[in-house]
Amino acid sequence: MSPRNDHAEEEYELTASGNLHPAYTTKYKDGSSIDWLNEELVERARTQQQRSQRGIRGIFLPWRDSAQRWFVIIVTGIGVGLAGAWLDVLVKWLSDLREGRCSYGLFYNQALCCNEIDPGDACIAWKTWTQVMGIHNGLGQALVQSFIYVICATLFAGCSAFLVQHYAPYAFHTGIPEIKAILGGYVFDAFLTPWTLLIKALGLALAVASGLSLGKEGPLVHVACCMAHLLSQFFEQFRTGQGKKRKLLAAAAAAGVSVAFGSPLGGVLFGLEELDAFASESEVMWRGFVASAIAAVALQYVDPFGTGKLVLFQVTSVSDDTWRAFELIPWMGLGVIGGLLGHLMIKMNVQFAVFRRTSALHEWPVLEVVTVSALTASLSYLIVFARVQTSELVANLFQECDPARGDYHGLCNSSAMWENVFLLSLTAVAKFGLTAWTFGMMIPAGIFLPTIAIGACLGRVVGLLVQAAYRAWPTAWVFASCPPDPLVGCISPGFYAVIGASGMLGGVTRMTVSLVVILFELTGALSHVLPIMISVVTAKWVGDAVGEQGIYAAWIAMRAYPWLPGVEHRDGDERQTGEGMMRRVESLTVVEDGACTPRDIDSMLSRCGYSGFPVVSEGELMGYVTRDGLRNAIDNIPVEQQNRTCIFAPRFTAPDESEGERIDMSGVLDRTVLHLKKEVPQELVVSMFQKMSLRHILFTSGGKLEGMVTKTDVAALMTSHFPYAGALAH
Amino acid sequence: MSPRNDHAEEEYELTASGNLHPAYTTKYKDGSSIDWLNEELVERARTQQQRSQRGIRGIFLPWRDSAQRWFVIIVTGIGVGLAGAWLDVLVKWLSDLREGRCSYGLFYNQALCCNEIDPGDACIAWKTWTQVMGIHNGLGQALVQSFIYVICATLFAGCSAFLVQHYAPYAFHTGIPEIKAILGGYVFDAFLTPWTLLIKALGLALAVASGLSLGKEGPLVHVACCMAHLLSQFFEQFRTGQGKKRKLLAAAAAAGVSVAFGSPLGGVLFGLEELDAFASESEVMWRGFVASAIAAVALQYVDPFGTGKLVLFQVTSVSDDTWRAFELIPWMGLGVIGGLLGHLMIKMNVQFAVFRRTSALHEWPVLEVVTVSALTASLSYLIVFARVQTSELVANLFQECDPARGDYHGLCNSSAMWENVFLLSLTAVAKFGLTAWTFGMMIPAGIFLPTIAIGACLGRVVGLLVQAAYRAWPTAWVFASCPPDPLVGCISPGFYAVIGASGMLGGVTRMTVSLVVILFELTGALSHVLPIMISVVTAKWVGDAVGEQGIYAAWIAMRAYPWLPGVEHRDGDERQTGEGMMRRVESLTVVEDGACTPRDIDSMLSRCGYSGFPVVSEGELMGYVTRDGLRNAIDNIPVEQQNRTCIFAPRFTAPDESEGERIDMSGVLDRTVLHLKKEVPQELVVSMFQKMSLRHILFTSGGKLEGMVTKTDVAALMTSHFPYAGALAH
Repeated sequence: MSPRNDHAEEEYELTASGNLHPAYTTKYKDGSSIDWLNEELVERARTQQQRSQRGIRGIFLPWRDSAQRWFVIIVTGIGVGLAGAWLDVLVKWLSDLREGRCSYGLFYNQALCCNEIDPGDACIAWKTWTQVMGIHNGLGQALVQSFIYVICATLFAGCSAFLVQHYAPYAFHTGIPEIKAILGGYVFDAFLTPWTLLIKALGLALAVASGLSLGKEGPLVHVACCMAHLLSQFFEQFRTGQGKKRKLLAAAAAAGVSVAFGSPLGGVLFGLEELDAFASESEVMWRGFVASAIAAVALQYVDPFGTGKLVLFQVTSVSDDTWRAFELIPWMGLGVIGGLLGHLMIKMNVQFAVFRRTSALHEWPVLEVVTVSALTASLSYLIVFARVQTSELVANLFQECDPARGDYHGLCNSSAMWENVFLLSLTAVAKFGLTAWTFGMMIPAGIFLPTIAIGACLGRVVGLLVQAAYRAWPTAWVFASCPPDPLVGCISPGFYAVIGASGMLGGVTRMTVSLVVILFELTGALSHVLPIMISVVTAKWVGDAVGEQGIYAAWIAMRAYPWLPGVEHRDGDERQTGEGMMRRVESLTVVEDGACTPRDIDSMLSRCGYSGFPVVSEGELMGYVTRDGLRNAIDNIPVEQQNRTCIFAPRFTAPDESEGERIDMSGVLDRTVLHLKKEVPQELVVSMFQKMSLRHILFTSGGKLEGMVTKTDVAALMTSHFPYAGALAH
Repeated sequence: MSPRNDHAEEEYELTASGNLHPAYTTKYKDGSSIDWLNEELVERARTQQQRSQRGIRGIFLPWRDSAQRWFVIIVTGIGVGLAGAWLDVLVKWLSDLREGRCSYGLFYNQALCCNEIDPGDACIAWKTWTQVMGIHNGLGQALVQSFIYVICATLFAGCSAFLVQHYAPYAFHTGIPEIKAILGGYVFDAFLTPWTLLIKALGLALAVASGLSLGKEGPLVHVACCMAHLLSQFFEQFRTGQGKKRKLLAAAAAAGVSVAFGSPLGGVLFGLEELDAFASESEVMWRGFVASAIAAVALQYVDPFGTGKLVLFQVTSVSDDTWRAFELIPWMGLGVIGGLLGHLMIKMNVQFAVFRRTSALHEWPVLEVVTVSALTASLSYLIVFARVQTSELVANLFQECDPARGDYHGLCNSSAMWENVFLLSLTAVAKFGLTAWTFGMMIPAGIFLPTIAIGACLGRVVGLLVQAAYRAWPTAWVFASCPPDPLVGCISPGFYAVIGASGMLGGVTRMTVSLVVILFELTGALSHVLPIMISVVTAKWVGDAVGEQGIYAAWIAMRAYPWLPGVEHRDGDERQTGEGMMRRVESLTVVEDGACTPRDIDSMLSRCGYSGFPVVSEGELMGYVTRDGLRNAIDNIPVEQQNRTCIFAPRFTAPDESEGERIDMSGVLDRTVLHLKKEVPQELVVSMFQKMSLRHILFTSGGKLEGMVTKTDVAALMTSHFPYAGALAH
């Protein structure tokens, strides 16, 4: 047994409940980063203490830990599924309320109200507001109807913004950048309070119902994480184990995506690719898988849309499911458009966000939301396509023209092709501008659905154009693979809309695999996986060529969260080594072993806010102490001993001073700190931070401390090229 | 600039072609592990040298590297797609040859031969062998036909085994364990030769056509990797850069799976989950994505099945796509069965493999193959279900009963339900035993398809039983959610077969996400993602509870490849630290700085086979030298200097000996070696090896070398609990 181990045995005493004494786990303040290595150490000590308990306790305690974990995962899964379903119902009711009410009860939405009549009959139970008021004049109807539409939308959005601003400011925006940072080790408990959960869910329903250009996807991930956080706080192991808590949150995030898109597999892959949450352990992916499946089952059980299916935007093609090789050209074109527009969207959104922060708008968030929602509602009312809920618009755009299903706003009327092309383009442009502005206002807002809508409009436009070309020249050599009779159908404009949406999403988020899975779980278009893949690939390629980051990474950089992107760090010109990035020992605050008193340490702690300090003895690195460790240790020292010398490392040589004058602080010293030579290349240092989730690395030479690099330094280095890095930092 | 950098600038001189001087890249022997950190260093130096070239070369050289990489990826993708298609055509022809021949050309398979007649008419162009020979007697027909069937099968299998044994022994088995080890850094170039590629592809076609209980999936991954390896050898950057080559191989492996299952997304996820290949860089996943898509496009272009679709085993349900909650109980039951049988399969397969190695069978691999194939063919001929190709059997089992499609061997005949249950169970049992034996014989053999077939048989049995129960008691409360009329249909036995296959695959391979994606890309059953997920989850849970590892991990352990599983290492009872696993400095071979001559080093190199040595100076760790670095350095020293003292580190103190008596070896010293304190917990050491792909870690205390751990030590530690670990090592 090494000294360290004997040591640990004394140190990690279990309390009566089988948990570690709280003094030995670190408390993190909001804004700091957790120390994954230390978390693992504490976790390990805890597990082994539990296993070594005699008799039934040795079996029961580990089992209890595991049961608690699965309890949180399963309950979160069910909770998120139910919350998602409830949200859908609420949104449907609120948004129908903009147009009218049910004559036999205010709380029925249009579909429920008209549920009992036979299909084909007109629904007389549902009254538009003008019918309720008894206005029969045509112009009057239009004016009153549009006025109420805009007023309702503004009211919903205003309420949402008011709630967010006054009760839970962290409930604004999508939440995904923050979740990414938290899963990476950032401490931000204020972001996950029950209050935030409530306001975000309620505000989201209002915001979506108001018809603003936003989606529910990101916010649902936030809601899921809040739920898991709330549940986890009932259990000691998650209150103290920050690493364990984060692994739970990762599973919850997967469940959130699963519910948002009705895509259980997409949820797991989103966690894997975008949140980078499962890199640490396959066990975590596994939990995400279970949470995701349970959430989807819960959603399907409630069945808010009454379809009995998870697939939200079913794509049905009239022609057979095959596609022709020449179609790859327009599809890759859609990928290119998606990549370019995605980049433009990110750029505009970032500039709007910076403008909002620096201008007078910063003081009037609710007013901004009200104005934008009034503008959005007016525009949407004018452009007929945008008048319905965005999700309904997307569903209609993905739909093939089928005489049996009816026509949506004349989209299938081939004689009005140019009108449709114009209207769709107009919708796309309006949505583009509105989305770029809306994403970042003081309301819960996701970027997925509006992006899908923009892409779907553009895709449908391209589809209509190709279809028109085919109908005009059915015998041209390009269309040789199509049936010669143009009435049979060869081009499916609905599927072009799916491809357009894939490309646009690829350009904005820069995700790949998870995007493809989400898209075909959304649409059920399994036979078209390849075209979707190709369009996403093209969009990402083009997007990465013109601008480096996806929208979430851009927001993380603006807010300066200590989060490390998974990309390889390649510093262009110089042969940088660790030496180039480290802070040198002369500028570090170090604790000198055997050369300071508790009083000195106390004043040092109040002087500087670092979360830990290297301990040296005559220049030689002894180890590392955390701020909390030092604080706990010196707080427990009686006043009369405050002038004694602190000894961190056991000394084997005879001490100069007498035994009574020393205070043994070796309990707080972490001697297993990672240290490298400063000649190590910078890229390797960065890659160690990324892969090992480190918080700091010390540099030594022949045992002597030479410098130190922290996660914050590395994050700053990696976002330094971004023009607005830190522009929205607190 | 640090000394190391100035240094590097002198060191990495580019040759005329813009490549590093070969002396500075390491040559690895088969059986060793590559040093990822060193590979990254070399790669980094190379990139920066290229960028720093003046003028057009500075732009052209990096561009050329990238173009070469994409060339290999794209050509491999196309090549694998074509190889897969060619394989399908060859297998179809060969396996039809077991039953008869086409009257107007030997090289037509049955489908092609009967292509031109109208559906419904009998095909007279295709003659069974008895028709060719003119045998009309019923018993004679059966005897001759079965005799030819068995003879052909045995002949194909024998040829395959002969080819493999005599020309490319590494072409046997699935190849996935080896690919996993290679991607993790194991050097095994003999496994990827063009000759292996040829024999594996040809042998695979013969083996599959012989009707042995094996699949083409794993071997196709091997074939894809061989192709990528062959192509990469044309380019200097991959010949010297072992890390770069492995990233290419990872993309190729994804393409292999993509073609094997017609599942481009499943390929990417297989690479991600099972091969653990994309953990290093998102860039690699991205390349896998592209390779996978291209391979699928190539396969679809050739369209070997003439369906125009990638979906191999299309599931079509007669009833609507919904499922009922009570069905979750039989489906979870199938998951439990899959988990248990999967464990049994792994156990039996391991024991058969060990028996094969230790018994006389080891000397007679071809004879073994011939015997087993004769046995398989006879059994298959008797059990009608197994007489067709396994893939055809699976396709039929996944099919719903639909009067329009015709019945397959009376599966849809509800009056013969018990006969079907019996026959299907018998098929499953026979396939189970045969597969457990076949997987590991001297032929190319994958485990996926037979596993799917076993699971599909069992699933269909359960489906038939549930259906019978429903038909017997349509009004029972369990079936309350079904339509009351039993003729409408509520239970889809075909879908039970899919669930059974998922569970069985989950039990054998212990994969999760990638399995689900592969399965629904295989079947197109998107509406049933949730049941598939639940069955895979259950199977993995049960399987992990009864036995720890999947079948690939078991084979890796048996062959003792230095591969680290991604699972967290939890050592049960002890508080192990790095000290517990390290080899202490006393038992290490170290190079003492300034205390040995080239002659000493030469004798040391011939004495011990280690791939590198720590360099110490009076106990203090100076750095690390590789075997190749030392070998190169001393080979370049003139004979008359062989007695001088080698100096590895620049000395700032005045040297005792005169300048002329020293040899500067500082060029080969790697001073950036990773070192830890020995008090670091063992789990952390293991996790560093896993996450950073390290080859060794040195332990120091106050700058003094204390010990060392290598990847091989860690791999041995992690497989030590496995009963047959190393049983098949070379």
